[in-house]
Amino acid sequence: MVMREPELTPLSIQTVAADSYRQAKERMREAIARYAAEGRYRLPSEEELSTALGVSRATLRSVLQSLQKEGRIRRLHGSGTFINRHTIGIAANLAEASPFVDLLTQAGYRPAVRTLDQRLIALDDELATSLELPAGERALRIERVFDADGKPAVHSVDHVPATLLGEHPEDSDPRRSTFEFVETDTGTPVCYSVAEIRPVLPPTAIATALGLPRTRPVLRLRHTHIRADELPVAVTVVHVNDDYLRFSVIRTYLDQ
Amino acid sequence: MVMREPELTPLSIQTVAADSYRQAKERMREAIARYAAEGRYRLPSEEELSTALGVSRATLRSVLQSLQKEGRIRRLHGSGTFINRHTIGIAANLAEASPFVDLLTQAGYRPAVRTLDQRLIALDDELATSLELPAGERALRIERVFDADGKPAVHSVDHVPATLLGEHPEDSDPRRSTFEFVETDTGTPVCYSVAEIRPVLPPTAIATALGLPRTRPVLRLRHTHIRADELPVAVTVVHVNDDYLRFSVIRTYLDQ
Repeated sequence: MVMREPELTPLSIQTVAADSYRQAKERMREAIARYAAEGRYRLPSEEELSTALGVSRATLRSVLQSLQKEGRIRRLHGSGTFINRHTIGIAANLAEASPFVDLLTQAGYRPAVRTLDQRLIALDDELATSLELPAGERALRIERVFDADGKPAVHSVDHVPATLLGEHPEDSDPRRSTFEFVETDTGTPVCYSVAEIRPVLPPTAIATALGLPRTRPVLRLRHTHIRADELPVAVTVVHVNDDYLRFSVIRTYLDQ
Repeated sequence: MVMREPELTPLSIQTVAADSYRQAKERMREAIARYAAEGRYRLPSEEELSTALGVSRATLRSVLQSLQKEGRIRRLHGSGTFINRHTIGIAANLAEASPFVDLLTQAGYRPAVRTLDQRLIALDDELATSLELPAGERALRIERVFDADGKPAVHSVDHVPATLLGEHPEDSDPRRSTFEFVETDTGTPVCYSVAEIRPVLPPTAIATALGLPRTRPVLRLRHTHIRADELPVAVTVVHVNDDYLRFSVIRTYLDQ
């Protein structure tokens, strides 16, 4: 089964819950870029920021804490909140949980997503172990490619246990993101993800989907998504052509 | 110039400032492993923890904040601090700024470090750009290999501008870590690092140093270390054989 959705706009897979928080964070990001461009690296007070961005103090605080965790800003006890200047140019921060369409947009590309395949499978040992299920249990497997300006940049395969997806998991809308599947269908949000990072030569099928020779290393990210009740609810294996997305991480040492 | 220091113990390069903080964090890690083994995933109050670990409340708070940033714990507003259970087994967290000897120890190996070469070089364009210096400026280049149980696991090259290293940079003690060079010799601590992550086939010299065929992908991490005054003070390029160190990142979504 191959489905093509060339018309799919980025917005249609951005339906992870808290939209207002995400909008506030996006506005804060833009504000940081503006301040930095003006050479103002010390952020205004929380009061001024919440007024300037039109968000509540509580939302602002969550946004600042998130940006701090990602390494974009630092808070120095007693002297304020500062922009980490050398992080301004980073388009893809591995610590940020942005959907690939957003990452590709931030990297300057016109993104699109194609669902190559969607089917029910029986979990192999490795997937079953990660999902804390017996091997052989059924799961929905969704294979996608994310394009950058029409060229394949990221190959992604999600695995969601069928037991989490209602009576007819095979009929799930393939355009929904992994998070939508898991959160909408189970009613419990994903709380954290663990991503293992490996440099690999792509398996043949993935090399073909990405239009790469098999001798070209790609970054493999294997995510296990964990729900608030500590149940692993999905495994997503991603292969990234780093011509399009070059990930960074930021480590901060001194902030509060 | 090749120097071998087979007798070097891990401790001798663990001299990054705040030792008491690091000890407190290590004790907190051990406590988390113990609590998790007992099925106690909700952490005791800060008061109880600071008494149990014998550290001040202020130190404890810094440690908890750091573990939260790394994704090891989550703090849920109004309900407490919880261990992210599925992160217990992670030995090498890319968001943690641990020295390689510590990472190798955590991964179950006996670590050692060898300095292969130390010399003054002229910065090429790429390094000069990262260090915000004119190309051709002098820098101390230190090439090291980190062994795991006597086998090469990580190849590392540091570049520190000579202007930061006093009158005779070439006489710097090669056993010191990059951070020691930068912090001791400039008097200003490193504030954050940006690490770009790429999957690559190792260049010949690095493949040889790591004992790998050139067709075997390795993880390349290119760090720029930034001082509190936003001056980039060192570039460290690392190639990792992921048979020994398999990095993960943890993304958290819901915590405060």
